[in-house]
Amino acid sequence: MIKLALLQMNVESEKEENILKAERMVRSAASRQADIVVLPEMFNCPYNAANFPLYAEPDNGPAWQALSHIAADNKIFLVAGSIPEKDSEGHVYNTCYIFDADGTQIGKHRKIHLFDIHIPGKQTFRESDTLTPGSAVTVVDTPFCPIGIAICYDIRFPELFRMMVDRGAKLVIVPGAFNMTTGPAHWEILFRTRAMDNQVYMAGAAPARNSDAGYVSYANSLVATPWGDIAGRLGEKEETLFTEIDITEVDRVRRELPLLEHRRKDIYF
Amino acid sequence: MIKLALLQMNVESEKEENILKAERMVRSAASRQADIVVLPEMFNCPYNAANFPLYAEPDNGPAWQALSHIAADNKIFLVAGSIPEKDSEGHVYNTCYIFDADGTQIGKHRKIHLFDIHIPGKQTFRESDTLTPGSAVTVVDTPFCPIGIAICYDIRFPELFRMMVDRGAKLVIVPGAFNMTTGPAHWEILFRTRAMDNQVYMAGAAPARNSDAGYVSYANSLVATPWGDIAGRLGEKEETLFTEIDITEVDRVRRELPLLEHRRKDIYF
Repeated sequence: MIKLALLQMNVESEKEENILKAERMVRSAASRQADIVVLPEMFNCPYNAANFPLYAEPDNGPAWQALSHIAADNKIFLVAGSIPEKDSEGHVYNTCYIFDADGTQIGKHRKIHLFDIHIPGKQTFRESDTLTPGSAVTVVDTPFCPIGIAICYDIRFPELFRMMVDRGAKLVIVPGAFNMTTGPAHWEILFRTRAMDNQVYMAGAAPARNSDAGYVSYANSLVATPWGDIAGRLGEKEETLFTEIDITEVDRVRRELPLLEHRRKDIYF
Repeated sequence: MIKLALLQMNVESEKEENILKAERMVRSAASRQADIVVLPEMFNCPYNAANFPLYAEPDNGPAWQALSHIAADNKIFLVAGSIPEKDSEGHVYNTCYIFDADGTQIGKHRKIHLFDIHIPGKQTFRESDTLTPGSAVTVVDTPFCPIGIAICYDIRFPELFRMMVDRGAKLVIVPGAFNMTTGPAHWEILFRTRAMDNQVYMAGAAPARNSDAGYVSYANSLVATPWGDIAGRLGEKEETLFTEIDITEVDRVRRELPLLEHRRKDIYF
Protein backbone atom coordinates (compact mmCIF):
# COMPACT_ATOMS: atom_id res chain seq x y z
CA MET A 1 0.00 0.00 0.00
CA ILE A 2 1.16 3.53 -0.81
CA LYS A 3 0.45 6.16 1.83
CA LEU A 4 -0.45 9.35 0.04
CA ALA A 5 -0.81 12.71 1.81
CA LEU A 6 -2.37 15.65 -0.03
CA LEU A 7 -1.75 18.98 1.73
CA GLN A 8 -4.69 21.30 1.20
CA MET A 9 -2.83 24.45 2.23
CA ASN A 10 -4.39 27.85 2.61
CA VAL A 11 -2.09 29.99 0.45
CA GLU A 12 -0.83 33.15 2.19
CA SER A 13 0.37 36.31 0.49
CA GLU A 14 4.03 35.95 1.57
CA LYS A 15 6.09 33.49 -0.45
CA GLU A 16 8.36 32.50 2.46
CA GLU A 17 5.44 32.03 4.83
CA ASN A 18 3.99 29.47 2.40
CA ILE A 19 7.28 27.56 2.23
CA LEU A 20 7.42 27.43 6.04
CA LYS A 21 3.83 26.25 6.24
CA ALA A 22 4.53 23.56 3.62
CA GLU A 23 7.48 22.40 5.74
CA ARG A 24 5.33 22.12 8.87
CA MET A 25 2.57 20.24 7.09
CA VAL A 26 5.03 17.87 5.35
CA ARG A 27 6.70 17.12 8.70
CA SER A 28 3.32 16.28 10.20
CA ALA A 29 2.44 14.01 7.26
CA ALA A 30 5.83 12.28 7.50
CA SER A 31 5.22 11.62 11.18
CA ARG A 32 2.14 9.69 10.06
CA GLN A 33 4.29 7.55 7.74
CA ALA A 34 3.31 9.15 4.44
CA ASP A 35 5.28 7.84 1.45
CA ILE A 36 4.33 10.53 -1.05
CA VAL A 37 3.36 14.06 -0.07
CA VAL A 38 1.67 16.43 -2.52
CA LEU A 39 1.40 20.22 -2.35
CA PRO A 40 -1.25 22.24 -4.23
CA GLU A 41 -0.95 24.35 -7.37
CA MET A 42 0.76 27.74 -6.84
CA PHE A 43 1.09 27.02 -3.14
CA ASN A 44 3.66 29.80 -2.63
CA CYS A 45 1.95 32.47 -4.75
CA PRO A 46 -1.63 33.73 -4.58
CA TYR A 47 -3.21 32.65 -7.87
CA ASN A 48 -3.24 35.77 -10.02
CA ALA A 49 -1.63 36.25 -13.44
CA ALA A 50 0.12 39.44 -12.32
CA ASN A 51 1.76 37.64 -9.38
CA PHE A 52 3.41 34.89 -11.40
CA PRO A 53 6.36 36.94 -12.75
CA LEU A 54 6.81 38.66 -9.38
CA TYR A 55 7.01 35.40 -7.43
CA ALA A 56 8.94 33.44 -10.09
CA GLU A 57 12.35 31.91 -9.35
CA PRO A 58 14.80 29.89 -11.45
CA ASP A 59 15.59 26.18 -11.07
CA ASN A 60 17.74 25.73 -7.97
CA GLY A 61 16.45 29.01 -6.54
CA PRO A 62 15.49 29.52 -2.88
CA ALA A 63 12.08 27.81 -3.15
CA TRP A 64 13.57 24.87 -5.05
CA GLN A 65 16.33 24.51 -2.42
CA ALA A 66 13.82 24.62 0.42
CA LEU A 67 11.64 21.96 -1.23
CA SER A 68 14.60 19.66 -1.84
CA HIS A 69 15.55 19.92 1.83
CA ILE A 70 11.98 19.34 2.97
CA ALA A 71 11.90 16.07 1.01
CA ALA A 72 15.30 14.90 2.28
CA ASP A 73 14.78 15.94 5.90
CA ASN A 74 11.47 14.09 6.07
CA LYS A 75 12.51 11.14 3.86
CA ILE A 76 9.39 11.38 1.71
CA PHE A 77 8.73 11.69 -2.03
CA LEU A 78 7.56 15.24 -2.61
CA VAL A 79 5.35 16.27 -5.51
CA ALA A 80 5.85 19.93 -4.83
CA GLY A 81 2.56 21.31 -6.10
CA SER A 82 3.50 24.13 -8.41
CA ILE A 83 5.35 27.41 -8.21
CA PRO A 84 6.12 30.07 -10.81
CA GLU A 85 9.43 29.23 -12.52
CA LYS A 86 11.49 31.76 -14.50
CA ASP A 87 13.90 30.44 -17.13
CA SER A 88 17.12 32.12 -18.28
CA GLU A 89 15.24 33.96 -21.03
CA GLY A 90 12.69 35.38 -18.62
CA HIS A 91 9.81 33.10 -19.60
CA VAL A 92 7.58 32.18 -16.67
CA TYR A 93 6.05 28.70 -16.28
CA ASN A 94 3.60 27.07 -13.87
CA THR A 95 5.96 24.30 -12.73
CA CYS A 96 5.78 21.21 -10.56
CA TYR A 97 9.09 19.85 -9.21
CA ILE A 98 9.25 16.26 -8.00
CA PHE A 99 11.87 15.19 -5.42
CA ASP A 100 12.74 11.73 -4.15
CA ALA A 101 13.28 10.93 -0.46
CA ASP A 102 16.93 12.03 -0.75
CA GLY A 103 15.88 15.46 -2.00
CA THR A 104 17.04 14.77 -5.56
CA GLN A 105 14.87 16.23 -8.31
CA ILE A 106 13.51 13.28 -10.30
CA GLY A 107 11.16 15.21 -12.53
CA LYS A 108 9.67 18.54 -13.44
CA HIS A 109 6.39 19.33 -15.16
CA ARG A 110 5.55 22.62 -16.77
CA LYS A 111 1.79 23.14 -17.19
CA ILE A 112 1.05 22.36 -20.83
CA HIS A 113 -2.45 23.78 -21.20
CA LEU A 114 -2.83 27.38 -20.05
CA PHE A 115 -6.08 28.40 -18.39
CA ASP A 116 -7.80 31.12 -20.41
CA ILE A 117 -11.48 31.30 -19.59
CA HIS A 118 -14.15 33.97 -19.91
CA ILE A 119 -17.56 33.14 -18.48
CA PRO A 120 -19.29 36.53 -18.21
CA GLY A 121 -20.35 37.36 -14.66
CA LYS A 122 -18.78 34.21 -13.28
CA GLN A 123 -15.11 33.52 -13.94
CA THR A 124 -12.48 35.16 -16.10
CA PHE A 125 -8.76 34.34 -16.03
CA ARG A 126 -5.92 34.49 -18.56
CA GLU A 127 -2.81 32.57 -17.59
CA SER A 128 -1.40 33.22 -21.04
CA ASP A 129 -1.04 36.92 -20.16
CA THR A 130 2.05 36.08 -18.13
CA LEU A 131 2.82 32.37 -18.52
CA THR A 132 4.51 30.28 -21.20
CA PRO A 133 3.19 26.74 -21.68
CA GLY A 134 5.31 23.61 -21.25
CA SER A 135 5.49 21.04 -24.03
CA ALA A 136 6.64 17.83 -22.33
CA VAL A 137 4.62 14.94 -20.92
CA THR A 138 5.84 14.00 -17.46
CA VAL A 139 5.95 10.48 -16.01
CA VAL A 140 8.51 9.87 -13.25
CA ASP A 141 9.85 6.50 -12.14
CA THR A 142 9.53 5.81 -8.44
CA PRO A 143 9.89 2.69 -6.29
CA PHE A 144 6.08 2.69 -5.96
CA CYS A 145 5.10 2.86 -9.65
CA PRO A 146 5.51 5.25 -12.57
CA ILE A 147 3.68 8.45 -11.64
CA GLY A 148 2.25 10.92 -14.14
CA ILE A 149 2.07 14.63 -13.35
CA ALA A 150 -0.40 17.19 -14.69
CA ILE A 151 -1.30 20.64 -13.44
CA CYS A 152 -4.91 21.81 -13.05
CA TYR A 153 -6.28 22.73 -16.50
CA ASP A 154 -4.13 19.96 -18.02
CA ILE A 155 -6.74 17.56 -16.60
CA ARG A 156 -9.27 18.82 -19.16
CA PHE A 157 -7.43 17.11 -22.02
CA PRO A 158 -7.92 13.34 -22.31
CA GLU A 159 -5.07 13.07 -24.84
CA LEU A 160 -2.50 13.90 -22.16
CA PHE A 161 -3.74 11.07 -19.93
CA ARG A 162 -3.53 8.54 -22.74
CA MET A 163 0.08 9.61 -23.28
CA MET A 164 0.93 9.23 -19.60
CA VAL A 165 -0.69 5.80 -19.44
CA ASP A 166 1.16 4.66 -22.55
CA ARG A 167 4.35 5.69 -20.73
CA GLY A 168 3.41 3.45 -17.79
CA ALA A 169 1.62 5.73 -15.32
CA LYS A 170 -0.54 3.92 -12.75
CA LEU A 171 -1.05 6.96 -10.55
CA VAL A 172 -1.46 10.51 -11.83
CA ILE A 173 -0.99 13.41 -9.43
CA VAL A 174 -2.58 16.76 -10.25
CA PRO A 175 -1.93 19.90 -8.22
CA GLY A 176 -4.88 22.09 -9.17
CA ALA A 177 -7.00 25.04 -8.19
CA PHE A 178 -10.45 24.98 -9.72
CA ASN A 179 -12.73 27.93 -8.92
CA MET A 180 -16.27 28.32 -7.60
CA THR A 181 -17.76 28.06 -11.12
CA THR A 182 -15.84 25.16 -12.65
CA GLY A 183 -15.17 23.39 -9.34
CA PRO A 184 -18.72 22.42 -8.35
CA ALA A 185 -19.50 21.57 -11.99
CA HIS A 186 -16.41 19.63 -13.07
CA TRP A 187 -13.67 19.00 -10.45
CA GLU A 188 -14.84 15.63 -9.12
CA ILE A 189 -16.11 14.25 -12.42
CA LEU A 190 -12.80 15.04 -14.15
CA PHE A 191 -10.80 13.06 -11.59
CA ARG A 192 -13.25 10.15 -11.63
CA THR A 193 -13.35 10.17 -15.44
CA ARG A 194 -9.62 10.20 -16.10
CA ALA A 195 -9.28 7.45 -13.47
CA MET A 196 -12.06 5.32 -15.00
CA ASP A 197 -11.06 5.81 -18.66
CA ASN A 198 -7.38 5.12 -18.05
CA GLN A 199 -7.75 2.73 -15.11
CA VAL A 200 -5.29 4.62 -12.92
CA TYR A 201 -5.43 6.26 -9.52
CA MET A 202 -5.90 10.02 -9.74
CA ALA A 203 -4.98 12.41 -6.91
CA GLY A 204 -5.79 16.12 -6.87
CA ALA A 205 -4.32 18.59 -4.36
CA ALA A 206 -5.94 22.02 -4.21
CA PRO A 207 -5.39 25.07 -2.03
CA ALA A 208 -7.91 25.54 0.79
CA ARG A 209 -10.75 27.95 0.05
CA ASN A 210 -10.20 31.60 0.91
CA SER A 211 -13.34 33.53 0.04
CA ASP A 212 -11.44 36.83 0.36
CA ALA A 213 -8.94 35.92 -2.37
CA GLY A 214 -9.11 37.40 -5.88
CA TYR A 215 -9.42 33.85 -7.22
CA VAL A 216 -11.37 31.57 -4.90
CA SER A 217 -10.17 27.96 -4.86
CA TYR A 218 -12.87 25.28 -4.83
CA ALA A 219 -10.57 23.13 -2.65
CA ASN A 220 -12.02 19.55 -2.30
CA SER A 221 -8.68 17.71 -2.68
CA LEU A 222 -9.45 14.11 -3.56
CA VAL A 223 -8.31 10.66 -4.69
CA ALA A 224 -10.15 8.55 -7.30
CA THR A 225 -9.66 4.81 -7.88
CA PRO A 226 -9.10 2.95 -11.19
CA TRP A 227 -12.80 2.00 -11.10
CA GLY A 228 -13.75 5.68 -10.92
CA ASP A 229 -14.83 5.77 -7.27
CA ILE A 230 -13.78 8.41 -4.75
CA ALA A 231 -11.30 7.00 -2.18
CA GLY A 232 -11.08 10.20 -0.14
CA ARG A 233 -12.11 13.83 -0.37
CA LEU A 234 -11.71 16.96 1.73
CA GLY A 235 -13.98 19.98 2.14
CA GLU A 236 -12.87 23.59 1.90
CA LYS A 237 -10.60 24.03 4.95
CA GLU A 238 -6.83 23.75 5.40
CA GLU A 239 -6.31 20.07 6.09
CA THR A 240 -4.37 16.99 4.92
CA LEU A 241 -5.99 14.09 3.08
CA PHE A 242 -4.41 10.72 3.92
CA THR A 243 -5.26 7.83 1.59
CA GLU A 244 -3.75 4.36 1.28
CA ILE A 245 -3.83 3.07 -2.26
CA ASP A 246 -3.25 -0.47 -3.52
CA ILE A 247 -1.55 -0.12 -6.88
CA THR A 248 -2.33 -3.77 -7.80
CA GLU A 249 -5.96 -2.62 -8.19
CA VAL A 250 -4.84 -1.02 -11.44
CA ASP A 251 -3.84 -4.41 -12.82
CA ARG A 252 -7.02 -6.10 -11.61
CA VAL A 253 -9.33 -3.53 -13.18
CA ARG A 254 -7.36 -3.59 -16.45
CA ARG A 255 -7.61 -7.38 -16.56
CA GLU A 256 -11.36 -7.53 -15.89
CA LEU A 257 -12.33 -4.68 -18.23
CA PRO A 258 -9.44 -4.38 -20.74
CA LEU A 259 -10.19 -0.86 -21.97
CA LEU A 260 -6.63 -0.03 -22.89
CA GLU A 261 -6.22 -3.20 -24.96
CA HIS A 262 -9.59 -2.58 -26.62
CA ARG A 263 -8.53 0.76 -28.03
CA ARG A 264 -8.72 0.79 -31.85
CA LYS A 265 -5.43 2.55 -32.50
CA ASP A 266 -5.70 1.28 -36.08
CA ILE A 267 -8.49 3.75 -36.79
CA TYR A 268 -7.90 6.72 -34.45
CA PHE A 269 -7.05 10.09 -36.01
CA MET B 1 -34.87 23.86 -30.19
CA ILE B 2 -34.56 20.21 -31.19
CA LYS B 3 -37.18 17.87 -29.75
CA LEU B 4 -35.48 14.61 -28.96
CA ALA B 5 -37.36 11.45 -27.97
CA LEU B 6 -35.47 8.47 -26.56
CA LEU B 7 -37.54 5.28 -26.55
CA GLN B 8 -36.59 3.13 -23.57
CA MET B 9 -38.20 -0.05 -24.93
CA ASN B 10 -38.50 -3.29 -23.03
CA VAL B 11 -37.00 -5.76 -25.52
CA GLU B 12 -39.19 -8.83 -26.15
CA SER B 13 -37.97 -12.20 -27.39
CA GLU B 14 -39.74 -12.01 -30.78
CA LYS B 15 -38.01 -9.87 -33.39
CA GLU B 16 -41.24 -8.80 -35.11
CA GLU B 17 -42.93 -7.95 -31.85
CA ASN B 18 -40.09 -5.49 -31.13
CA ILE B 19 -40.47 -3.84 -34.52
CA LEU B 20 -44.20 -3.41 -33.93
CA LYS B 21 -43.58 -1.94 -30.49
CA ALA B 22 -40.99 0.44 -31.92
CA GLU B 23 -43.56 1.55 -34.49
CA ARG B 24 -46.17 2.27 -31.79
CA MET B 25 -43.73 4.18 -29.61
CA VAL B 26 -42.38 6.22 -32.54
CA ARG B 27 -45.94 7.13 -33.58
CA SER B 28 -46.66 8.32 -30.08
CA ALA B 29 -43.44 10.38 -29.97
CA ALA B 30 -44.23 11.89 -33.38
CA SER B 31 -47.66 12.90 -32.12
CA ARG B 32 -45.83 14.93 -29.49
CA GLN B 33 -43.84 16.73 -32.23
CA ALA B 34 -40.53 14.92 -31.78
CA ASP B 35 -37.91 15.84 -34.40
CA ILE B 36 -35.47 13.01 -33.75
CA VAL B 37 -36.48 9.65 -32.31
CA VAL B 38 -33.92 7.20 -30.93
CA LEU B 39 -34.29 3.46 -30.31
CA PRO B 40 -32.06 1.50 -27.92
CA GLU B 41 -29.20 -0.90 -28.65
CA MET B 42 -30.30 -4.33 -29.94
CA PHE B 43 -33.94 -3.33 -29.60
CA ASN B 44 -35.13 -6.20 -31.77
CA CYS B 45 -32.92 -8.93 -30.28
CA PRO B 46 -32.46 -9.93 -26.64
CA TYR B 47 -28.83 -9.01 -25.84
CA ASN B 48 -26.95 -12.31 -25.95
CA ALA B 49 -23.97 -13.20 -28.15
CA ALA B 50 -25.65 -16.39 -29.37
CA ASN B 51 -28.73 -14.46 -30.54
CA PHE B 52 -26.90 -12.02 -32.79
CA PRO B 53 -26.32 -14.37 -35.78
CA LEU B 54 -29.83 -15.84 -35.40
CA TYR B 55 -31.54 -12.43 -35.50
CA ALA B 56 -29.19 -10.86 -38.06
CA GLU B 57 -30.49 -9.50 -41.38
CA PRO B 58 -28.80 -7.85 -44.36
CA ASP B 59 -29.06 -4.19 -45.37
CA ASN B 60 -32.50 -3.60 -46.91
CA GLY B 61 -33.86 -6.67 -45.09
CA PRO B 62 -37.28 -6.78 -43.39
CA ALA B 63 -36.20 -4.88 -40.25
CA TRP B 64 -34.44 -2.21 -42.33
CA GLN B 65 -37.56 -1.84 -44.54
CA ALA B 66 -39.82 -1.53 -41.53
CA LEU B 67 -37.59 1.12 -39.94
CA SER B 68 -37.41 3.16 -43.16
CA HIS B 69 -41.22 3.13 -43.34
CA ILE B 70 -41.57 4.07 -39.68
CA ALA B 71 -39.39 7.16 -40.26
CA ALA B 72 -41.25 8.18 -43.43
CA ASP B 73 -44.75 7.50 -42.11
CA ASN B 74 -44.11 9.58 -39.01
CA LYS B 75 -41.95 12.24 -40.74
CA ILE B 76 -39.22 12.05 -38.08
CA PHE B 77 -35.48 11.47 -38.15
CA LEU B 78 -34.94 7.98 -36.80
CA VAL B 79 -31.73 6.84 -35.12
CA ALA B 80 -32.75 3.23 -35.18
CA GLY B 81 -30.94 1.98 -32.08
CA SER B 82 -29.08 -1.08 -33.21
CA ILE B 83 -29.89 -4.45 -34.72
CA PRO B 84 -27.68 -7.37 -35.75
CA GLU B 85 -26.62 -6.91 -39.39
CA LYS B 86 -25.28 -9.73 -41.57
CA ASP B 87 -23.10 -8.84 -44.55
CA SER B 88 -22.75 -10.82 -47.76
CA GLU B 89 -19.80 -12.76 -46.32
CA GLY B 90 -21.75 -13.79 -43.24
CA HIS B 91 -20.04 -11.39 -40.81
CA VAL B 92 -22.39 -10.08 -38.14
CA TYR B 93 -22.24 -6.49 -36.87
CA ASN B 94 -23.96 -4.47 -34.15
CA THR B 95 -25.37 -1.79 -36.46
CA CYS B 96 -27.23 1.49 -36.12
CA TYR B 97 -29.13 2.71 -39.21
CA ILE B 98 -30.08 6.37 -39.42
CA PHE B 99 -33.05 7.47 -41.57
CA ASP B 100 -34.23 10.95 -42.47
CA ALA B 101 -37.86 12.04 -42.34
CA ASP B 102 -38.40 10.66 -45.87
CA GLY B 103 -37.21 7.22 -44.79
CA THR B 104 -33.93 7.52 -46.70
CA GLN B 105 -30.91 5.98 -45.00
CA ILE B 106 -28.48 8.85 -44.30
CA GLY B 107 -25.95 6.90 -42.27
CA LYS B 108 -25.01 3.62 -40.72
CA HIS B 109 -22.73 2.92 -37.77
CA ARG B 110 -21.22 -0.45 -36.99
CA LYS B 111 -20.08 -0.72 -33.36
CA ILE B 112 -16.32 -0.21 -33.41
CA HIS B 113 -15.35 -1.42 -29.94
CA LEU B 114 -16.66 -4.87 -29.05
CA PHE B 115 -17.69 -5.51 -25.45
CA ASP B 116 -15.55 -8.26 -23.94
CA ILE B 117 -15.62 -8.13 -20.16
CA HIS B 118 -14.95 -10.63 -17.40
CA ILE B 119 -15.58 -9.43 -13.86
CA PRO B 120 -15.75 -12.67 -11.83
CA GLY B 121 -19.06 -13.13 -10.02
CA LYS B 122 -20.52 -9.98 -11.54
CA GLN B 123 -20.57 -9.61 -15.31
CA THR B 124 -19.10 -11.60 -18.18
CA PHE B 125 -19.87 -11.03 -21.86
CA ARG B 126 -18.00 -11.59 -25.11
CA GLU B 127 -19.44 -9.82 -28.14
CA SER B 128 -16.39 -10.86 -30.12
CA ASP B 129 -17.58 -14.48 -29.99
CA THR B 130 -20.13 -13.69 -32.69
CA LEU B 131 -19.64 -10.09 -33.83
CA THR B 132 -17.22 -8.37 -36.18
CA PRO B 133 -16.25 -4.78 -35.30
CA GLY B 134 -16.85 -1.80 -37.55
CA SER B 135 -14.00 0.52 -38.48
CA ALA B 136 -15.66 3.76 -39.54
CA VAL B 137 -16.42 6.90 -37.55
CA THR B 138 -19.99 8.05 -38.14
CA VAL B 139 -21.17 11.65 -38.27
CA VAL B 140 -24.35 12.32 -40.26
CA ASP B 141 -25.47 15.66 -41.64
CA THR B 142 -28.97 16.69 -40.68
CA PRO B 143 -30.92 19.95 -40.87
CA PHE B 144 -30.48 20.25 -37.09
CA CYS B 145 -26.68 19.83 -36.83
CA PRO B 146 -24.08 17.19 -37.61
CA ILE B 147 -24.85 14.21 -35.36
CA GLY B 148 -22.28 11.63 -34.23
CA ILE B 149 -23.28 8.04 -33.60
CA ALA B 150 -21.65 5.55 -31.23
CA ILE B 151 -22.94 2.28 -29.82
CA CYS B 152 -22.68 1.42 -26.13
CA TYR B 153 -19.09 0.29 -25.37
CA ASP B 154 -17.84 2.77 -28.00
CA ILE B 155 -18.53 5.45 -25.39
CA ARG B 156 -15.62 4.15 -23.30
CA PHE B 157 -13.09 5.49 -25.80
CA PRO B 158 -12.43 9.24 -25.71
CA GLU B 159 -10.52 9.10 -29.00
CA LEU B 160 -13.70 8.32 -30.91
CA PHE B 161 -15.44 11.40 -29.52
CA ARG B 162 -12.56 13.67 -30.48
CA MET B 163 -12.83 12.30 -34.01
CA MET B 164 -16.58 12.94 -34.15
CA VAL B 165 -16.16 16.47 -32.84
CA ASP B 166 -13.43 17.22 -35.35
CA ARG B 167 -15.92 16.13 -38.02
CA GLY B 168 -18.43 18.66 -36.73
CA ALA B 169 -20.65 16.74 -34.31
CA LYS B 170 -22.58 18.91 -31.85
CA LEU B 171 -24.84 16.12 -30.64
CA VAL B 172 -23.77 12.50 -30.21
CA ILE B 173 -26.40 9.79 -29.93
CA VAL B 174 -25.51 6.50 -28.27
CA PRO B 175 -27.85 3.52 -28.24
CA GLY B 176 -26.47 1.47 -25.36
CA ALA B 177 -27.23 -1.25 -22.84
CA PHE B 178 -25.02 -1.08 -19.78
CA ASN B 179 -25.54 -3.78 -17.14
CA MET B 180 -26.15 -3.80 -13.40
CA THR B 181 -22.40 -3.75 -12.63
CA THR B 182 -21.09 -1.14 -15.05
CA GLY B 183 -24.34 0.85 -15.21
CA PRO B 184 -24.53 2.16 -11.65
CA ALA B 185 -20.75 2.74 -11.67
CA HIS B 186 -20.19 4.38 -15.04
CA TRP B 187 -23.25 5.03 -17.26
CA GLU B 188 -24.07 8.57 -16.17
CA ILE B 189 -20.50 9.75 -15.68
CA LEU B 190 -19.54 8.59 -19.18
CA PHE B 191 -22.30 10.64 -20.82
CA ARG B 192 -21.55 13.69 -18.66
CA THR B 193 -17.82 13.37 -19.32
CA ARG B 194 -17.94 13.03 -23.09
CA ALA B 195 -20.38 15.96 -23.13
CA MET B 196 -18.16 18.13 -20.90
CA ASP B 197 -14.83 17.26 -22.56
CA ASN B 198 -16.12 17.73 -26.10
CA GLN B 199 -18.75 20.39 -25.36
CA VAL B 200 -21.50 18.53 -27.17
CA TYR B 201 -24.91 17.20 -26.24
CA MET B 202 -24.87 13.48 -25.50
CA ALA B 203 -27.98 11.28 -25.63
CA GLY B 204 -28.11 7.65 -24.53
CA ALA B 205 -31.05 5.31 -25.27
CA ALA B 206 -31.11 2.02 -23.36
CA PRO B 207 -33.56 -0.86 -23.22
CA ALA B 208 -35.84 -0.90 -20.17
CA ARG B 209 -34.72 -3.16 -17.33
CA ASN B 210 -35.91 -6.75 -17.38
CA SER B 211 -34.57 -8.53 -14.33
CA ASP B 212 -35.47 -11.93 -15.83
CA ALA B 213 -33.26 -11.43 -18.89
CA GLY B 214 -29.89 -13.16 -19.28
CA TYR B 215 -28.27 -9.75 -19.55
CA VAL B 216 -30.01 -7.15 -17.38
CA SER B 217 -30.02 -3.62 -18.85
CA TYR B 218 -29.34 -0.78 -16.44
CA ALA B 219 -31.79 1.38 -18.43
CA ASN B 220 -31.59 5.06 -17.24
CA SER B 221 -31.75 6.62 -20.73
CA LEU B 222 -30.48 10.18 -20.47
CA VAL B 223 -29.36 13.43 -22.09
CA ALA B 224 -26.31 15.44 -20.98
CA THR B 225 -25.58 19.08 -21.89
CA PRO B 226 -22.33 20.60 -23.26
CA TRP B 227 -21.59 21.81 -19.71
CA GLY B 228 -21.83 18.23 -18.41
CA ASP B 229 -25.18 18.52 -16.64
CA ILE B 230 -28.04 16.06 -16.96
CA ALA B 231 -30.94 17.50 -18.98
CA GLY B 232 -33.22 14.49 -18.55
CA ARG B 233 -33.06 10.92 -17.28
CA LEU B 234 -35.39 7.96 -17.00
CA GLY B 235 -35.54 5.17 -14.45
CA GLU B 236 -35.80 1.47 -15.25
CA LYS B 237 -39.27 1.15 -16.82
CA GLU B 238 -40.44 1.20 -20.45
CA GLU B 239 -40.97 4.86 -21.15
CA THR B 240 -40.00 7.70 -23.52
CA LEU B 241 -37.67 10.54 -22.54
CA PHE B 242 -38.56 13.84 -24.21
CA THR B 243 -35.92 16.58 -24.08
CA GLU B 244 -35.68 19.89 -25.91
CA ILE B 245 -32.12 20.88 -26.64
CA ASP B 246 -30.76 24.24 -27.76
CA ILE B 247 -27.84 23.50 -30.05
CA THR B 248 -26.54 27.09 -29.77
CA GLU B 249 -25.50 26.17 -26.22
CA VAL B 250 -22.66 24.22 -27.81
CA ASP B 251 -21.27 27.40 -29.35
CA ARG B 252 -21.70 29.41 -26.14
CA VAL B 253 -19.87 26.89 -23.97
CA ARG B 254 -17.08 26.53 -26.54
CA ARG B 255 -16.67 30.31 -26.64
CA GLU B 256 -16.55 30.77 -22.87
CA LEU B 257 -14.26 27.81 -22.13
CA PRO B 258 -12.43 27.11 -25.42
CA LEU B 259 -11.31 23.55 -24.63
CA LEU B 260 -11.19 22.39 -28.22
CA GLU B 261 -9.02 25.34 -29.30
CA HIS B 262 -6.77 24.82 -26.29
CA ARG B 263 -5.83 21.29 -27.30
CA ARG B 264 -2.07 20.93 -27.87
CA LYS B 265 -2.22 18.91 -31.05
CA ASP B 266 1.42 19.86 -31.61
CA ILE B 267 2.49 17.55 -28.80
CA TYR B 268 -0.12 14.77 -28.67
CA PHE B 269 0.98 11.23 -29.55
